Amino acid sequence: MKGNMRIIRRLINALLAMILVLGFAKTAFAQESETAVSAVDTVWVLIAAFLVFFMQAGFGFLEAGFVRSKNVVNIMAENLMDTTMTTMGFIFLGFGLMFGSGNGFFGTEWFFLQGMPEVYPGLTIPTLAFFFFQFAFCAAASTIASGLMAERTDFKADLAYSFFTGLIIYPIFGHWVWGGGWLSELGYMDFAGSSVVHLVGAYVGLAGTILMGKRKDKKFGHTIRGHNISLAALGTFILWLGWFGFNPGSQLNAEPGAISLIVVTTDFAATTGAIVAMFLAYAFTRKWDVSMAFNGALGGLVAITAPCAFVTPMGALTIGAIAGAISYFGVDLMEKLKIDDPVGAFPVHGLNGIFGTLAVGIWAVDGVGLLHGGGFAQLGVQLVGLLACTAWTLPLAFGMFYAIDKIIGLRVPAAVEVAGIDMAYHGIGSYPEFTGYGLESDAPIMKDVLPAPTD
Amino acid sequence: MKGNMRIIRRLINALLAMILVLGFAKTAFAQESETAVSAVDTVWVLIAAFLVFFMQAGFGFLEAGFVRSKNVVNIMAENLMDTTMTTMGFIFLGFGLMFGSGNGFFGTEWFFLQGMPEVYPGLTIPTLAFFFFQFAFCAAASTIASGLMAERTDFKADLAYSFFTGLIIYPIFGHWVWGGGWLSELGYMDFAGSSVVHLVGAYVGLAGTILMGKRKDKKFGHTIRGHNISLAALGTFILWLGWFGFNPGSQLNAEPGAISLIVVTTDFAATTGAIVAMFLAYAFTRKWDVSMAFNGALGGLVAITAPCAFVTPMGALTIGAIAGAISYFGVDLMEKLKIDDPVGAFPVHGLNGIFGTLAVGIWAVDGVGLLHGGGFAQLGVQLVGLLACTAWTLPLAFGMFYAIDKIIGLRVPAAVEVAGIDMAYHGIGSYPEFTGYGLESDAPIMKDVLPAPTD
Amino acid sequence: MKGNMRIIRRLINALLAMILVLGFAKTAFAQESETAVSAVDTVWVLIAAFLVFFMQAGFGFLEAGFVRSKNVVNIMAENLMDTTMTTMGFIFLGFGLMFGSGNGFFGTEWFFLQGMPEVYPGLTIPTLAFFFFQFAFCAAASTIASGLMAERTDFKADLAYSFFTGLIIYPIFGHWVWGGGWLSELGYMDFAGSSVVHLVGAYVGLAGTILMGKRKDKKFGHTIRGHNISLAALGTFILWLGWFGFNPGSQLNAEPGAISLIVVTTDFAATTGAIVAMFLAYAFTRKWDVSMAFNGALGGLVAITAPCAFVTPMGALTIGAIAGAISYFGVDLMEKLKIDDPVGAFPVHGLNGIFGTLAVGIWAVDGVGLLHGGGFAQLGVQLVGLLACTAWTLPLAFGMFYAIDKIIGLRVPAAVEVAGIDMAYHGIGSYPEFTGYGLESDAPIMKDVLPAPTD
Repeated sequence: MKGNMRIIRRLINALLAMILVLGFAKTAFAQESETAVSAVDTVWVLIAAFLVFFMQAGFGFLEAGFVRSKNVVNIMAENLMDTTMTTMGFIFLGFGLMFGSGNGFFGTEWFFLQGMPEVYPGLTIPTLAFFFFQFAFCAAASTIASGLMAERTDFKADLAYSFFTGLIIYPIFGHWVWGGGWLSELGYMDFAGSSVVHLVGAYVGLAGTILMGKRKDKKFGHTIRGHNISLAALGTFILWLGWFGFNPGSQLNAEPGAISLIVVTTDFAATTGAIVAMFLAYAFTRKWDVSMAFNGALGGLVAITAPCAFVTPMGALTIGAIAGAISYFGVDLMEKLKIDDPVGAFPVHGLNGIFGTLAVGIWAVDGVGLLHGGGFAQLGVQLVGLLACTAWTLPLAFGMFYAIDKIIGLRVPAAVEVAGIDMAYHGIGSYPEFTGYGLESDAPIMKDVLPAPTD
Repeated sequence: MKGNMRIIRRLINALLAMILVLGFAKTAFAQESETAVSAVDTVWVLIAAFLVFFMQAGFGFLEAGFVRSKNVVNIMAENLMDTTMTTMGFIFLGFGLMFGSGNGFFGTEWFFLQGMPEVYPGLTIPTLAFFFFQFAFCAAASTIASGLMAERTDFKADLAYSFFTGLIIYPIFGHWVWGGGWLSELGYMDFAGSSVVHLVGAYVGLAGTILMGKRKDKKFGHTIRGHNISLAALGTFILWLGWFGFNPGSQLNAEPGAISLIVVTTDFAATTGAIVAMFLAYAFTRKWDVSMAFNGALGGLVAITAPCAFVTPMGALTIGAIAGAISYFGVDLMEKLKIDDPVGAFPVHGLNGIFGTLAVGIWAVDGVGLLHGGGFAQLGVQLVGLLACTAWTLPLAFGMFYAIDKIIGLRVPAAVEVAGIDMAYHGIGSYPEFTGYGLESDAPIMKDVLPAPTD
Repeated sequence: MKGNMRIIRRLINALLAMILVLGFAKTAFAQESETAVSAVDTVWVLIAAFLVFFMQAGFGFLEAGFVRSKNVVNIMAENLMDTTMTTMGFIFLGFGLMFGSGNGFFGTEWFFLQGMPEVYPGLTIPTLAFFFFQFAFCAAASTIASGLMAERTDFKADLAYSFFTGLIIYPIFGHWVWGGGWLSELGYMDFAGSSVVHLVGAYVGLAGTILMGKRKDKKFGHTIRGHNISLAALGTFILWLGWFGFNPGSQLNAEPGAISLIVVTTDFAATTGAIVAMFLAYAFTRKWDVSMAFNGALGGLVAITAPCAFVTPMGALTIGAIAGAISYFGVDLMEKLKIDDPVGAFPVHGLNGIFGTLAVGIWAVDGVGLLHGGGFAQLGVQLVGLLACTAWTLPLAFGMFYAIDKIIGLRVPAAVEVAGIDMAYHGIGSYPEFTGYGLESDAPIMKDVLPAPTD
């Protein structure tokens, strides 16, 4: 262990020196011999992006299923509008900060999508196809946070943090890893975003949930039952499907061997993640708690996201199995830490985002990972990246939510939380006939019938 | 304005002259140098068609969510069977009328899919792939109408109008625009069907809802609450996803630059549509009414459908924003006009179908649209097309529903409407355990157990 | 008829002789001139596989909609975990037994995915892409069985049979047909698996349901109402969508003419299947029973699965129409045979699996089918294949379930069945707020809070 620590310390020292050199050097894409744009590559990336876009629905239904019926409209509104607000932030600054040429810390061009080349440099797809794929990723990051903050966040606060996440938080760290920034120069490897997407989103949500505190009626050690397991199952299946866009789409072309391997590693990790979490639940409680199978599968998917292109199918089975255990025990951990995460999002996206990033340094083949002759070098670089992710995202997210709380108000009033956010803030209930909640069949809809209530 | 009118009048005069010349001239596809069939183009168009097909589910869940639980089985049955009946109409005559060679008004070959060439003339995909893509469009048009007519239409009437819409109404106007007919000769531009699909479907439904009148318990100015916002959200997400087939699939090949642009314009219009409608709802009612976000997004999607290939991403943001406002205020308008449109389908598909068609004449680049140096010429042509769409579809739809009413009966009896269509016409309830409606656990299923009730 | 019998008998004799010759001859793929791996073929097959994977959700929601709310968590858990358990079985032995070279009865290599070539012999896609497509098929077969056995099967028994189905039952028959085994040598034609997937799955489920007997409260001749028709509709739409992967993906390349034809025949059979079943329901009961439309569409899809690549679009319309009738009358038949099939899975997958296999021998063009100049020869071969499928699958499934019953226990205790499997075995209810079932908002979730109940 002491040897490991020394390697890591040396890496950090080297890193600090490199930051000064690399960080402010102008990043620019290599003058590769221009490859022609490819129809099949574009088709592949676009369809992958559609699947990733559809993950918004998956997150929405997973979260909706795990909350109470009085907050379902709010959850669906958040998941839909998060996408749109993130899009605007990503259009305004995000895409330029993340992928425009600039320095090691951020890009300095392409704001408002101006001045972009037709074909993305170094790729065989139009820049707009690349933009669309990346926007869908950005939307996922911001939506992950809404799960951690469910059932008590003010809707305007949700809109604000989504916009800001797409504007600044996500793209800057993204630039470091995928935009030619300093972490990519260091050799940090996160193929499809265990850290860039999932850990960033989980950290944003973690900051929010810590700042707000628990739901009024949450008792740690006891769960609040979700209102609709069918919806949660729907969300899980859509997310699993969406990951077949998320991971192999990140190849950014349709190289047959690469995308086939990634599809298989992605699926395998979800498989063992679900199995291990489900059997752990049975082993400890004698109940086959299907919500653990959902979170186990999703944990496996998050964990394989960084290493999906670098590991063998058998390595993926192992990574998924460990991820399933992390998802399972992570729920306990959150309870013990007294952090109220209504849908178990932090174990899935945060803890497994960390594990998946480290997994590259352990299971990556071709002399990279610890188990394949690479020693501790890559593992050290991965650890540097995780520290950078934490140092960037968590304080900034705390600051953002603090500012939102001062300006807009982060949390709904206690009375609204108890009564349900749906009627108070959205004016409709999700299932008025079944619950009686929001059943006002003569509710006025014309804007001039009803005087606008004071805010 | 007087100048505009003069231009439009001149165009209409020119049009009348051209109809005589073009209309009866034999349409035939140019003898292009035969391009080879392309695997990637075919894959792209087929997958796009799958997404469009899946929009049937999207329409179904959107409508189901917005109606009451006693009519959900009926809505699902309509959306499933509309597809099948439209398919039959489109196979029998529709595809031939729309795409077969003939004259400027209708095609005269390929009925019952006989005599079609292997490869669609001028394209690089098999005719069967082209047929399948176009069938899915036709099914969408017919299903749009079911939303306007929800909660009171007789099921047999629904089957009949779906068949007839696919047989005649949709394909004839489609021939004018996409089958080499007189509007296409005029230079009318509707890339993916703001008018051909959405406005036609909305007009059919409008005729039906006007003929039938409002639901018994509808009070204008007050909404009847939908029974399940989660289902409506599911429908919205599926429809948004489906539009990534609808619009870029209409390119009918996988030209990378074109399909990437269309994907982005499509997504952007949905984004600003949702944002504007949602913020308008909040501005006027201080409620974040998520159903407005749904309809705003869908309105943006309908509006961008005609111009998606002709405008810039920034143009798409503007078009979507206006469309969101149209979706929002359109709901008020329908209330004031005392037209009972249970799911808000006419503002989304009708008003935004009109707006989207005109938007081509305003925002199309390359010297076409008003804002890009094209003057009013294209706008005038677009207006001619809209008048033609109205003049063809609306009277024919009224005539069709009048005939259906005489022969089959268009509307369910009052007692059935009050009690719910599900049990009376379908014999099952959608949620028997939750509502008690349709909970007859010993309901006979063998055909010989129960004497067939009189009709 | 006598002539037919003679042909069939002669075929069976020939078969017995051939088994001795072929069965133990080493199967090996022809030394074709190595075709290069193709990006577009790989993209097509992978996306098709994603759609097939998503069918797991479709089966899940179809089944969930047709059972009672007290067993919904169980159904979703089964559908999710069936996939994972089948994956493990298919990885361990299944894929090797099915597709590895070996003899006419089973493959003898590639166990644990070891030793596979990069590119699947004779194809233009990576072996991993081929594996993933085939795994998704295998998962479908095992999930079909869960529908027949719904509302009374022990969860551990479900896990066990899924694993064993993927390990042995499915792959062996699959080898005979698709792995170069003796049936393929005979000329047996099942393009996408009417028998290989659907009949095998239906037989497994049939064995299970016969062994277990009916649900306690099932009265034959009377249906037990499903709890959520919206969910069943969702399942049906997802399955229909998924079939656009299932059938044209089985082409295993993106040959434009072939995949376009298959898409159209697939859709057409579903269309007439739904129409015929729906109109039969109306003719016999005067109710438009939408669950019959669901099963009619699915029956059409199952029936077209074997012949989809060999028949004309018009042939597909006929096959679908007959399949719809089989789905409809099959439900009656199951009641009369006193077999409790809660979701109507055997008529859909079993009877239509048989019919679809025979349909190849009737409607296949190019001188193969009875109606296209082929005489009874192919029909006889198809019958041989069906007999082989029956002889292999049914006894083995009975044996497997017998063993499971002895070792694990196949059926839940009566008290659990009455109270619902969800709370007893999974510890949560699907809709606690609506049904009161499983609403324990203070349920302990930490493993150390609650002593593990005895099993």
